[in-house]
Amino acid sequence: MPEFLHLQTPDEARSLLLRSLPDPQPAAETIDTTLALGRVTALPVEAPHPLPAFDRSAMDGYAVHAADTFGASESLPAYLKVVGEVSMGAQPDIDLHPGEAALIHTGGMLPASADAVVMLEYTQMVGRGDLHGRPGAGTPFVPRTPAAHRCETASPAPTPEIEISRAVAEGENVLRIGEDVRQGQVVIPAGMCVRPAEVGGLMALGVTQVAVVKRPRVGLISSGDEVVQPEQTPRPGQVRDVNSYTLSALVTKTGGEPVLYGIVPDDLETMQQVARRALSECDLVVITAGSSASARDMTADAIRSMGKPGVLVHGVNIRPGKPTILAVCEGKAVIGLPGNPVSALVIAGLFVVPVIEKLLGLPADRPRPSLLARLTINVPSQAGREDWVAVRLLRPSPLAPSRSTPVGLPSSGEGEWLAEPIFSKSNLIFSLVAADGLVRIPPDANGVSAGEVVEVVLM
Amino acid sequence: MPEFLHLQTPDEARSLLLRSLPDPQPAAETIDTTLALGRVTALPVEAPHPLPAFDRSAMDGYAVHAADTFGASESLPAYLKVVGEVSMGAQPDIDLHPGEAALIHTGGMLPASADAVVMLEYTQMVGRGDLHGRPGAGTPFVPRTPAAHRCETASPAPTPEIEISRAVAEGENVLRIGEDVRQGQVVIPAGMCVRPAEVGGLMALGVTQVAVVKRPRVGLISSGDEVVQPEQTPRPGQVRDVNSYTLSALVTKTGGEPVLYGIVPDDLETMQQVARRALSECDLVVITAGSSASARDMTADAIRSMGKPGVLVHGVNIRPGKPTILAVCEGKAVIGLPGNPVSALVIAGLFVVPVIEKLLGLPADRPRPSLLARLTINVPSQAGREDWVAVRLLRPSPLAPSRSTPVGLPSSGEGEWLAEPIFSKSNLIFSLVAADGLVRIPPDANGVSAGEVVEVVLM
Repeated sequence: MPEFLHLQTPDEARSLLLRSLPDPQPAAETIDTTLALGRVTALPVEAPHPLPAFDRSAMDGYAVHAADTFGASESLPAYLKVVGEVSMGAQPDIDLHPGEAALIHTGGMLPASADAVVMLEYTQMVGRGDLHGRPGAGTPFVPRTPAAHRCETASPAPTPEIEISRAVAEGENVLRIGEDVRQGQVVIPAGMCVRPAEVGGLMALGVTQVAVVKRPRVGLISSGDEVVQPEQTPRPGQVRDVNSYTLSALVTKTGGEPVLYGIVPDDLETMQQVARRALSECDLVVITAGSSASARDMTADAIRSMGKPGVLVHGVNIRPGKPTILAVCEGKAVIGLPGNPVSALVIAGLFVVPVIEKLLGLPADRPRPSLLARLTINVPSQAGREDWVAVRLLRPSPLAPSRSTPVGLPSSGEGEWLAEPIFSKSNLIFSLVAADGLVRIPPDANGVSAGEVVEVVLM
Repeated sequence: MPEFLHLQTPDEARSLLLRSLPDPQPAAETIDTTLALGRVTALPVEAPHPLPAFDRSAMDGYAVHAADTFGASESLPAYLKVVGEVSMGAQPDIDLHPGEAALIHTGGMLPASADAVVMLEYTQMVGRGDLHGRPGAGTPFVPRTPAAHRCETASPAPTPEIEISRAVAEGENVLRIGEDVRQGQVVIPAGMCVRPAEVGGLMALGVTQVAVVKRPRVGLISSGDEVVQPEQTPRPGQVRDVNSYTLSALVTKTGGEPVLYGIVPDDLETMQQVARRALSECDLVVITAGSSASARDMTADAIRSMGKPGVLVHGVNIRPGKPTILAVCEGKAVIGLPGNPVSALVIAGLFVVPVIEKLLGLPADRPRPSLLARLTINVPSQAGREDWVAVRLLRPSPLAPSRSTPVGLPSSGEGEWLAEPIFSKSNLIFSLVAADGLVRIPPDANGVSAGEVVEVVLM
């Protein structure tokens, strides 16, 4: 395998691949915002109106003319007449004259003539019971009675009064129109993954449909004379196709649309035909080789024939997955993965996922969560080579002598995890089924020692 | 609000809620394995047959009788006749006699009479060209020629011979039947979230359908006289419903099925009716209150009337979200959230998500990924209270003087992140749209200082 003489690190190889791809021009589709979770915005979303859309109380309290409270203090309170209560969800028809106040609730609309809100805490009824009732259905104001959850009749009682023990400035405890979001402001840029918060933000603005990037089509081709469909009962010597399904799930999880081209026998011409069709129908093509070295060579030959500029990387300094092929053909990425299911899934995470993310228009340098854990045993590795080791996460035994402060483990976390490497003779997919995540041993390390804190990428 | 006198921490409150719920008895449904990504297994999956299903070569090399190699070394190699090549995907019809070897590829089926494989690296053809061709379509063996990708005719040439420079033990470089997975072995327990690896593992065993837990139904009720449907144009004083949609997305993301009961006005009787219906139709009910204190009181009154044991927690020592209500009614959790969209979403993450996870049968103590970042400014907090602060993640400016070794930041990561708190006067949902994640300031802290490393939970 002469291609393996000068092996690049995974970072170098990925960077070369992404650099060699043209800038994505994501196609958009418009869908209901309620269905947009996990999709990526195709266009910036601008606020069609300001938020709040009206001057709004930020507190439970009394709407006032700020000037009426100037100089007010505990020893020298101001006195205001309470002329009503602002109903939630309605435009108040209270005209607040100087010397008057209106009960208002958090989120209530400020009466036109008021310009500040005094918090309930700094007020007190004068010579009356509790006035701090729930919002009534309308003005004029009626104090809450235990029997009436809604106040529906006008009060015949004399106008109540409040004592105010703290001055407020104009605008205090009020959210002005547009103070949160201005009309026309970009509230969600293009290239953002829609999370629950974005769904809510869009709904707050009445944006019930949103333009998202079409899911990139990812063609998946399995190969190998020994590989049969999962529905089939393998004859002696045969194994079921695993890679089409692990990769399909990974593509779906990443936001792509998997397109399965089935299992191609170890035959160059057939592979070339299928691969060319996949390249014309998809945005990215992933071919997994059969398990033998010669089947891998056939995959490489097929990819070489798919178009210019062709193979960029053949062989990456990584374990598992050294025989990885990275190519760009006719402006699309073509990735050749080793046939071993563990290698294929690990390598797909390092190369297929970033290409899908680029096609989606997501920024490359995004925050990615992981978990810190303490390695249970020494894991040797070859300098220059990057290793990805499958690990199971365990809690330390409560009987084990407690270690000193876990340096590097966040103090705010829910306690320490141990990472126990899973070594499997055959790299069967079940070694990943048993694993919680993968630990990267960087190329510049000679391994990691037991007790060291490592970053676990959960799968 | 007398209920707030003895406030529990979020951890205490969650633990009380989960403890008070009956053990879940998740209902199962059988679905195609290809559609199971993100679902939770309802039953343990046992291997219907062993893996590998046949003795399989773990290497490219020669199948041999181990005894024929005993004592072989570089200075005293063993010589064996090459009588054929094992085709991939087929049962070899080679009968290996003592003194004979057969070319075999990784994953190839071991001939019945062979008991070990010598790696290609320790073999050499005697007086012939390269024999290490790609798998042929059948035996007898024909050396690879550049023109022929498949070997289809019998070779008339004399039987080639190999030199073996290293002894192998019986079973060496061979994966025995069932060595990876035994027949009947539980390969995936119940209560496991199906990831790409599980999809592949199930397919490897021909398990194309799988029993998963039915998505728990989560009833979502919004309330508030001021709240209108997102499709509506709010009149002055009105705002659109946000919580039904953020929570719906969060429920979906967690694996539940949201059931929307719409917006209930601030009216106790209506709320009681809707809430009772939701309780009878769903596995969990979440009610968000209107924005005023009195609307929250109405929610609490409604929850109190829903059944035994009723309200367990009213008020949690947390910001945002102090007025949270946790209840169990007729064996189901009922959660009252504050109406503010930020509080509702943060609190739902702390209480609604764990209940859904319990209903799914997921273990409570699961590894959860996060990200470490350095706080840009001091964030004060009140001792005893747990704070969740929304943060934006930024890369340090390349012009900024580089800090010393980032203690606590993993060395294997892709570089340091800064966490910049987002403070919003009104806790509008757009403060979470702008945020990458949340930082927890634990109850026993008086805040966190600028420069400290914090754990960011990505949203």
